[in-house]
Amino acid sequence: MRITVLTLFPEFFDSFKTTSIIQRALADNKVTFECVDVRSFTKDKHNHVDDTPCGGGAGMLLMVQPIADALKAVKTENSHVVLLTPQGKTLCQPMVREYLHYDHLILICGHYEGFDERIRSYVDEEVSLGDFVLTGGEIAAMALSDAVIRLCSGVIREESHLDDSFENGLLEYPQYTRPIEYDGMRVPEILLSGHHENIRKWRLKESIRKTYLKRPDLLEKKTLNQEESQFLSEIMEEYNKK
Amino acid sequence: MRITVLTLFPEFFDSFKTTSIIQRALADNKVTFECVDVRSFTKDKHNHVDDTPCGGGAGMLLMVQPIADALKAVKTENSHVVLLTPQGKTLCQPMVREYLHYDHLILICGHYEGFDERIRSYVDEEVSLGDFVLTGGEIAAMALSDAVIRLCSGVIREESHLDDSFENGLLEYPQYTRPIEYDGMRVPEILLSGHHENIRKWRLKESIRKTYLKRPDLLEKKTLNQEESQFLSEIMEEYNKK
Repeated sequence: MRITVLTLFPEFFDSFKTTSIIQRALADNKVTFECVDVRSFTKDKHNHVDDTPCGGGAGMLLMVQPIADALKAVKTENSHVVLLTPQGKTLCQPMVREYLHYDHLILICGHYEGFDERIRSYVDEEVSLGDFVLTGGEIAAMALSDAVIRLCSGVIREESHLDDSFENGLLEYPQYTRPIEYDGMRVPEILLSGHHENIRKWRLKESIRKTYLKRPDLLEKKTLNQEESQFLSEIMEEYNKK
Repeated sequence: MRITVLTLFPEFFDSFKTTSIIQRALADNKVTFECVDVRSFTKDKHNHVDDTPCGGGAGMLLMVQPIADALKAVKTENSHVVLLTPQGKTLCQPMVREYLHYDHLILICGHYEGFDERIRSYVDEEVSLGDFVLTGGEIAAMALSDAVIRLCSGVIREESHLDDSFENGLLEYPQYTRPIEYDGMRVPEILLSGHHENIRKWRLKESIRKTYLKRPDLLEKKTLNQEESQFLSEIMEEYNKK
């Protein structure tokens, strides 16, 4: 997997590349991550990459030429080009899993006050981080890269993302670590029992309970097996009694 | 506005603090942004901040003690404490606007393999960036901070966020800048006409068209005025004919 970010602020990704899991993944060559400075492609004599909007209005817009030329320089037959913009499809875990199938992702960071509409014609897909507005696409590109890189083979242990929230359509069950008691709050006894099957059942039920209480929309999308349906009925009964 | 981030990776925010709009906002004292290293609060003799899950399972969990103690050290009467976790409420622009009312936001970054459930009892609110999984809460805290800081008074010009996607319940209209023609694509003639009222109408209609085509869910939530309703009918008629 290779990820190329087209940005006006390549230095913004310095900390991302040198911290924790991502640093290790890059050092171990599990993934290649590079930033390309869009400004170096401008043909403007003053080195500008933005200009005022046609038809008037506030703000400066990123011009189409530097982006189109930067793309030409880095795109190959196997590249998938993603534009980060609040108007895109909202990023979700199944999309992250799809990206793992590409050899090369190119992420274009839109910038604050907007960009020339014609940039959209050069991309395969538009992606949004969510229904909020950021100063630029950089943090969105970082989030997408982080979500993809952690799933690349060998970056973190397989087992540890099988239980991730969203991976099985449920929120993750409650987790506890030492001390057994802290500030008057105790770890649930069952987790100290050593009874693996009971612990598995408790975790599945609490995972369903969390999803029922916090994200019922996820349960509506999920096909439950018999054990899961049974737990859901029990949970719904508990809350109906209250 | 003061933002305090509790994290195991304070250096992760170095580039955020020194780039573009955020750098200017901090330099101009429009906002205070600080990172507190949770590790410095551990009472573990080996300086550990994580431990294995009670009841077994893969991964290491962030312990409750270092977070609880870090919070005690930075929290004041006016602090609003947010935990970044995929199980939280999904961040959206109205929530970002709400955060502007607090004097002090404390953002706690959960980390990769999870954290002790009891940490939830110390926070006012749990927030998620979206339905995907990141290596940690750092990028989510950065996104939330960025979205809030850009709306703080004096950071960017008021006019330039009035037309942001989501602010008025619509996606932003298409924008164009020079050159008038690029790679066979021309700026729409109306934007070159100099006729302000026609340009305003065109932009409103195209904003409604984008929202209708890409995010019809936003239109369902919005109360349209007479002009907007008229444009929406025209657009729906166009697509029904096709």
